[in-house]
Amino acid sequence: MLLNCDLGESFGSWQMGRDHDAMPHIDLANIACGFHAGDANVMAQTLSLAKQHKVTIGAHPSYPDLQGFGRRSMHCSATEIRHLLHYQIAALDGMAQCQGMSVSYVKPHGALYNDMMSQPAVWQAVLEAIASYHKPLKLMILATADAALLKQQAATAGVSLLLEAFADRRYTDQGKLTPRAQAGAVLHGAEVLEQVDQLLKSGTVTTDTGRTLALQADTLCVHGDNLEAIAQLQQIRMRVNACQR
Amino acid sequence: MLLNCDLGESFGSWQMGRDHDAMPHIDLANIACGFHAGDANVMAQTLSLAKQHKVTIGAHPSYPDLQGFGRRSMHCSATEIRHLLHYQIAALDGMAQCQGMSVSYVKPHGALYNDMMSQPAVWQAVLEAIASYHKPLKLMILATADAALLKQQAATAGVSLLLEAFADRRYTDQGKLTPRAQAGAVLHGAEVLEQVDQLLKSGTVTTDTGRTLALQADTLCVHGDNLEAIAQLQQIRMRVNACQR
Amino acid sequence: MLLNCDLGESFGSWQMGRDHDAMPHIDLANIACGFHAGDANVMAQTLSLAKQHKVTIGAHPSYPDLQGFGRRSMHCSATEIRHLLHYQIAALDGMAQCQGMSVSYVKPHGALYNDMMSQPAVWQAVLEAIASYHKPLKLMILATADAALLKQQAATAGVSLLLEAFADRRYTDQGKLTPRAQAGAVLHGAEVLEQVDQLLKSGTVTTDTGRTLALQADTLCVHGDNLEAIAQLQQIRMRVNACQR
Amino acid sequence: MLLNCDLGESFGSWQMGRDHDAMPHIDLANIACGFHAGDANVMAQTLSLAKQHKVTIGAHPSYPDLQGFGRRSMHCSATEIRHLLHYQIAALDGMAQCQGMSVSYVKPHGALYNDMMSQPAVWQAVLEAIASYHKPLKLMILATADAALLKQQAATAGVSLLLEAFADRRYTDQGKLTPRAQAGAVLHGAEVLEQVDQLLKSGTVTTDTGRTLALQADTLCVHGDNLEAIAQLQQIRMRVNACQR
Repeated sequence: MLLNCDLGESFGSWQMGRDHDAMPHIDLANIACGFHAGDANVMAQTLSLAKQHKVTIGAHPSYPDLQGFGRRSMHCSATEIRHLLHYQIAALDGMAQCQGMSVSYVKPHGALYNDMMSQPAVWQAVLEAIASYHKPLKLMILATADAALLKQQAATAGVSLLLEAFADRRYTDQGKLTPRAQAGAVLHGAEVLEQVDQLLKSGTVTTDTGRTLALQADTLCVHGDNLEAIAQLQQIRMRVNACQR
Repeated sequence: MLLNCDLGESFGSWQMGRDHDAMPHIDLANIACGFHAGDANVMAQTLSLAKQHKVTIGAHPSYPDLQGFGRRSMHCSATEIRHLLHYQIAALDGMAQCQGMSVSYVKPHGALYNDMMSQPAVWQAVLEAIASYHKPLKLMILATADAALLKQQAATAGVSLLLEAFADRRYTDQGKLTPRAQAGAVLHGAEVLEQVDQLLKSGTVTTDTGRTLALQADTLCVHGDNLEAIAQLQQIRMRVNACQR
Repeated sequence: MLLNCDLGESFGSWQMGRDHDAMPHIDLANIACGFHAGDANVMAQTLSLAKQHKVTIGAHPSYPDLQGFGRRSMHCSATEIRHLLHYQIAALDGMAQCQGMSVSYVKPHGALYNDMMSQPAVWQAVLEAIASYHKPLKLMILATADAALLKQQAATAGVSLLLEAFADRRYTDQGKLTPRAQAGAVLHGAEVLEQVDQLLKSGTVTTDTGRTLALQADTLCVHGDNLEAIAQLQQIRMRVNACQR
Repeated sequence: MLLNCDLGESFGSWQMGRDHDAMPHIDLANIACGFHAGDANVMAQTLSLAKQHKVTIGAHPSYPDLQGFGRRSMHCSATEIRHLLHYQIAALDGMAQCQGMSVSYVKPHGALYNDMMSQPAVWQAVLEAIASYHKPLKLMILATADAALLKQQAATAGVSLLLEAFADRRYTDQGKLTPRAQAGAVLHGAEVLEQVDQLLKSGTVTTDTGRTLALQADTLCVHGDNLEAIAQLQQIRMRVNACQR
C-alpha cells in the first residue's frame, strides 16, 4: 500500500502545506502544475525535495482556476481537457527530467477529480487525454465499488489505473465518499488509524451504515497540511511499514 | 538561410496572426508557450499546423505577462528565468511529442529577448537555463557584430546558437537594430527585399550611416501578422529558394 | 427600444470587435471589466469612446475566466458571485467617473448570464449582488415569457430590470432562445430585420414552431464583431429611429 | 503619528498575515486590490474587519504580477500606470462603499512603490494618476530627506502626501532606507522601539553612519505577518498612545 500526498501547492509568496515534513514519509507525490497552485519555482523545489527522498512523482493537474484553487467545477470540452492536461503534465515532466526524474502518473486535482468521478464525459475526456499523451502514465482515481468497471473502461482506452482510498473519509455503501456536509464524513484521530488498519489487513472499510465494504486500493491518500496531519501521516507510515514486514 | 516566424500567438477567443498563411513558407516556427500568448488549445493547433507543413518547431517563451504580451521588461532573478524557461519549453515540447514532433530550439520573446541581448545577467541566466534543460536545444539570438563573442560565451556554457537577422529592420554600425523610435528604423516594400538580397548574396547589411556591415546569420525573422506581411514573406521565400538553387 | 452591444472586449495586444464602428449606433454599451476581457487600458479607451457618442454605459462582468472568455460555467457560491460582481462593477464605475460618466446598469456576461437565467441560485445571487451594491443599478436580463415573475422577484430584492431581446436569435414557444446547436437558431440577413420589425411594431416574435409570442423588451442586443454585423446594426438603427418618429 | 500596515494580502486559498491580530492596533489599512494579492473575497473580508475596528482604509495597488507578489519591477508606461491605478483604486473604493466606507489614500505596493521613489517618470505617472482620479486621495510615500521637494512636486500636481517612516529599517544619511543586503539594514527588538521613541520624541532617526537625521513622518509602517510582528506592533501602539497623551 503506497502513500500519496498532494504537494507543491504553494504559489509565489504564499506558502501552503508542510512539504518538507511530509515528503520523507510518502511514496507518491502529487505535484501541482501551475493551474491551481505551484508556479515554476515551487515546482522545481518540490521536484528537488521528491528526488532527495526518492519519492515517485505524479502530475496533479487542474482546471485553470488559481483563485478558486481548482475547486470550482468548470464546464470544459473534451478537447480543452485533453490540452490542459497535456500542457500541465508536460510542464512538470520536462522540469522533472531536468532533475533526472520523470512523471509516472497523473492525479487530477479538486473539481476536475470530482467531475472525472461523477461525469462520464469528463471521465472519458481524462482517459483519452492520458491515452494520447506521448508516454504511458498511470491515472490515479478514487477506489470505489465500481473499480472493476472503471478499470475495464480504462483498459479499453489503454490506460492503467492507480486506485486510491482515503484514510480519513467515511465511505457510503456504494463505496463513494460520504459528502463532507454530512456528520461523521471526516474521520479523526483513532478512527483514521482504525480505517487504515482495516484496509491493510482485510482490504475493507466500514461504511456509514456500518456495513463492511471491500475496497481494492493501490494507494492511500494522506495529508501534509499542518503539524497534526504530519503526526497522523507518521503513524500511518508506521502501520504500513509494519504490515509490509 | 532559414526563415523563422513568431506563431501561435492567439489566446482563448482572441485571434492574432495569419498562421495558416505563414506556415507554408517558413522553416522555423517560434511557438508561444502560454505566458505572453498561446494557451494549450492554441499550442496544439499550431503544432498540428507545423507538422502538416514539416516546419521545425522552437519554443518562444516569455516573461509571465499576458496583458503586456511579454513586451514589458520584468526584473526576474536568474533562478526565476531558469524555471520560467524550463516550464514553458517543457510544456511545448511535451505537447509536441504528443503529435510526434519535438522542440529543436528556443527563441525568447519580446522583453525577455531584448533583456537577453542588453543585460549580461539575463544573457547568462538564459544560457544557463538552456544548458540545464534536459536535452540539447539551440538558442536563437540576434545576429550582431558581437556574434563571435556571444558564440564563445554560449559555447562555454555548452549552448549552440542560431543567429537571426531581421529583413525589415535597419541596423546601426554596431550591428544592433536601429531603435524603432528613429526615422527609417523599419524597412518597407522594396527596401526589405534589397536587404534580404544583400544578406543572401554577400552576408552584409547597409547600416543607418550607409556603411556595409558583415552580419553572420543562420536565419531571417519574417512576419505573418497580416496580408501585406504574408505577401512580403512569399517574396522573401522566393528569393531564398532562388539563392539555394 | 434601446440598442445594447457588448464592447470593450479587446485585451492587451488582442483586438476584438469594431467598437469604433458600433458605438455611434447604439444606446447602451456593455463594457467588459477585466475578468473575461477588457483590461484597464481597454476599459479607459472604451469609456472614452462611449462618452464621445453619449452612450449610456453598463458593466459587463463575468466569471474569472480570461482563457475561456467567460463562456465556461464555473460553480461559484453566492458570496463569490456577489464579490466578483461588486469588484468588476466598482472598477468600471470608478474608471467611468474619472471621465465624468457613471455606470447605469449591469449585464452579466456569457456563462454567468446563462447560469443566471437557468439556475435559480445564481439568479438570486446576482439579484442580491446588485441590490447590495452601494448605488442603484438596473440589471439587464433576457426577455422571456417569464418576465412578469422575474420582475416581481427582482422587485422583491429591490432591483429594476432591463429586458433584452435578441434580433438575431430564434425563440422557443417558452420564450427562450432556441439552442445554437439547433438548425435555424441564428437568424441572418432579412430574417433579422423582420424580427426587429415585428418586435418594434407588435412586441412579438414568431417562435421556432411558428407561433406568435408576446415578448416585452426594453432593449435589443446587437453585435459589432465584424463589417457584416456593423452593416446589420446600421439597418436596425434606422428601423428603430423610423419607429420612434 | 498614525500606524499603517499592509493587509488583505491573502489570495484564494492562500493565507498571508495575521490581519485579525493587527487590525485592532493600526490607524491606516493598506488593502491589496487583486493585482499582487487580495481577490474580491479577501478584499470584502478585509474591509469588513477594518470597519469593525474603525480603521481608515487605503488602496494598496501593484503592478499586475500575482506570482511575483508585485515585487518585480515592470516597465509600464505612464498611461498603463494611470489605468492600473485607477482600476485597482476604483475596485476597492466601490467595494468599500458597499460597506459604508470609502478609500482615503493610496500607497503603491512593492516594486511600484520602489520605482515611484527612484524613477522620476514613475513618480510623475503616479502623481498624475492620483490627480486624475475622480475624487481626492492622499498618496503615501517614503519619508526621505527630499520630502520638501516631493511635497512641492505633488502639490503642483494637486496631490497631498502622507509621509511614512519605517520602524524597523535603518536609514542612510540621505534619508533613504539602507538596502536590505547590507548588514544592520533591518532593526530588531529593542532597536525598533528605540527608533520609534526617537521618531516620536524628536522627529529624527540615527543613520547607519551614526548621524542624527530629521525625518518628517505622518505615519509609521508596521507589520502584521506573524506573532512576533504582532507583539512588536502592540508595543509600538503603546508607545504612540503614551506619546499622544
